[in-house]
Amino acid sequence: MTYCVGLYLRNGLVFMSDTRTNAGVDNVSVFRKVHRWHVPGERALVLLSAGNLATTQAVISILEERAKAPSDRAPSLLEAPSMFQAARLIGDTLREVISSYTGEGQTGESAFGATIILGGQIGGGEHRLFLIYPEGNFIEASDDNPFFQIGETKYGRPILVRALDRDMSFEDAVRLLLVSFDSTIKANLSVGLPLDLLVYEKDSYTLREPTRIQADDPYYTLISENWGQSLKDALVQLPPFTFEGGTA
Amino acid sequence: MTYCVGLYLRNGLVFMSDTRTNAGVDNVSVFRKVHRWHVPGERALVLLSAGNLATTQAVISILEERAKAPSDRAPSLLEAPSMFQAARLIGDTLREVISSYTGEGQTGESAFGATIILGGQIGGGEHRLFLIYPEGNFIEASDDNPFFQIGETKYGRPILVRALDRDMSFEDAVRLLLVSFDSTIKANLSVGLPLDLLVYEKDSYTLREPTRIQADDPYYTLISENWGQSLKDALVQLPPFTFEGGTA
Repeated sequence: MTYCVGLYLRNGLVFMSDTRTNAGVDNVSVFRKVHRWHVPGERALVLLSAGNLATTQAVISILEERAKAPSDRAPSLLEAPSMFQAARLIGDTLREVISSYTGEGQTGESAFGATIILGGQIGGGEHRLFLIYPEGNFIEASDDNPFFQIGETKYGRPILVRALDRDMSFEDAVRLLLVSFDSTIKANLSVGLPLDLLVYEKDSYTLREPTRIQADDPYYTLISENWGQSLKDALVQLPPFTFEGGTA
Repeated sequence: MTYCVGLYLRNGLVFMSDTRTNAGVDNVSVFRKVHRWHVPGERALVLLSAGNLATTQAVISILEERAKAPSDRAPSLLEAPSMFQAARLIGDTLREVISSYTGEGQTGESAFGATIILGGQIGGGEHRLFLIYPEGNFIEASDDNPFFQIGETKYGRPILVRALDRDMSFEDAVRLLLVSFDSTIKANLSVGLPLDLLVYEKDSYTLREPTRIQADDPYYTLISENWGQSLKDALVQLPPFTFEGGTA
């Protein structure tokens, strides 16, 4: 499994992903699930992937090949005129890769499916965030639903639902994501450190290298240790329950 | 789906269950998933069920019939000499019911599986808590793992992992459970109010009627509203994140 989140903030996008892939519990590896393309001043695209690793790697390889020789083989991510067209291109590629494996030959127990989060901005347009399904179709983040999760999404969802605010700073958003990831990692073996973090500032049209947060990262450790105590403290401060009239 | 939790505290057991059952999203009903048997002064048993409703109702009906006429048809829950034997009896019944539907005839898309939490105390023994699988086998709660969840378990798990303490009072345990249920209900349509609450005090050998917590329960509303703010406050009080040297 995997856990990836993309946040659609007022002033940009924040992406976080774990790096664990596993086939069973005895075949565990570290793979990067964050990919980016940018043309400084013109476009910036970030992709997070969850699902069958062979599928997502094939999709990335195809997109990379096309991006490297955009004149040879259109359509390329570097030529898509809008984020919507970029999402469509990735959705089509994803569907083609999946269908190329499902048609014939031996079929494994696990499916070839994969899900993708795509965020970015292309010349002049707004910054946008999409969730792309294995079928190739996709949905877009909005004020009402300003984030997408893929992979092992349930453990880390309550804190995002409660605390995410589109106007929050990048720093606050990263702290929130670390709490969401920590809750997931504490509960599920298939999601693991290190984490990759990437921030896109609106209208910057530039992307740094993802920051890798290692298992021994002092800030992550601090958050992880403090959050447990914070939850306990918050719980104690809630109004106390009483068994009125001994009904329970 | 469903969400049920059983807590194995030092001074007794606390059970909470939602009451929603659904076949798809357009066929939603309220069913009690908490069942109890007790002989004052001698034994007290509580059962929570998740999974196929036809299966769990059949299991309960069989157990009820046997309990009502224990002399006619052994083995009965009211005659089981220990909690271990009670868990075995329920596990066997569950496995028999499931296998009676899976053998022949039309098979629906959804499985007939169900999972059960059993807790209680039988004359002289310790109070114990079991998780019974569809295969009929079961595991027991311990100091290391002092709670069991069944159904839609993931959303509400992080807070239990962090905050549950075997020495906590019944009142604190109920408050913790309400937070865990609220996180789940906020995130997943298949778990819904009202909730059923049942507390067993160690060595009391008696069980009250479960307390039903309705959707408009003032304490539940208070907890639900306060917890969102508490989480936000706790988050703000965590050490702030900074992009050191602008690496992200």
